[in-house]
Amino acid sequence: MSKSIFYHAGCPVCVSAEHDIVNLIGAENVEIVHFGEDNSRIPEAEKAGVKSVPALVTPNGNVLHINFGASMDAVKG
Amino acid sequence: MSKSIFYHAGCPVCVSAEHDIVNLIGAENVEIVHFGEDNSRIPEAEKAGVKSVPALVTPNGNVLHINFGASMDAVKG
Repeated sequence: MSKSIFYHAGCPVCVSAEHDIVNLIGAENVEIVHFGEDNSRIPEAEKAGVKSVPALVTPNGNVLHINFGASMDAVKG
Repeated sequence: MSKSIFYHAGCPVCVSAEHDIVNLIGAENVEIVHFGEDNSRIPEAEKAGVKSVPALVTPNGNVLHINFGASMDAVKG
């Protein structure tokens, strides 16, 4: 199975969700992308259909938006 | 590890999310609750902090709201 990608922006709800996702899926099965540390990944996330963070993009390309942490616009701004 | 519980109401986004969650976590690690088939579980879900469905309650009690399918009020009504 290829990896899922978990995008987040460091907000408290993101970090909490990150821990849950890593516990559930396993750290080896998910790549964590923090926009606050690497905003060059934002276009890729938008292309994948990410509308808000935290979000999990599954290996088959589905986007699961988890809670509503911050809009993509807020992450950019 | 105890099971996670995935609550949903049969909406298209719920079913899609269900398939993703089952694929990611493994069917043996998650109980699926469909409010359309068993609305007696709604109070339990609300007590756990579920505000909308689909939602995943993790073994440690955190609630991950996935997308925004239907508010709990819509499920009841």
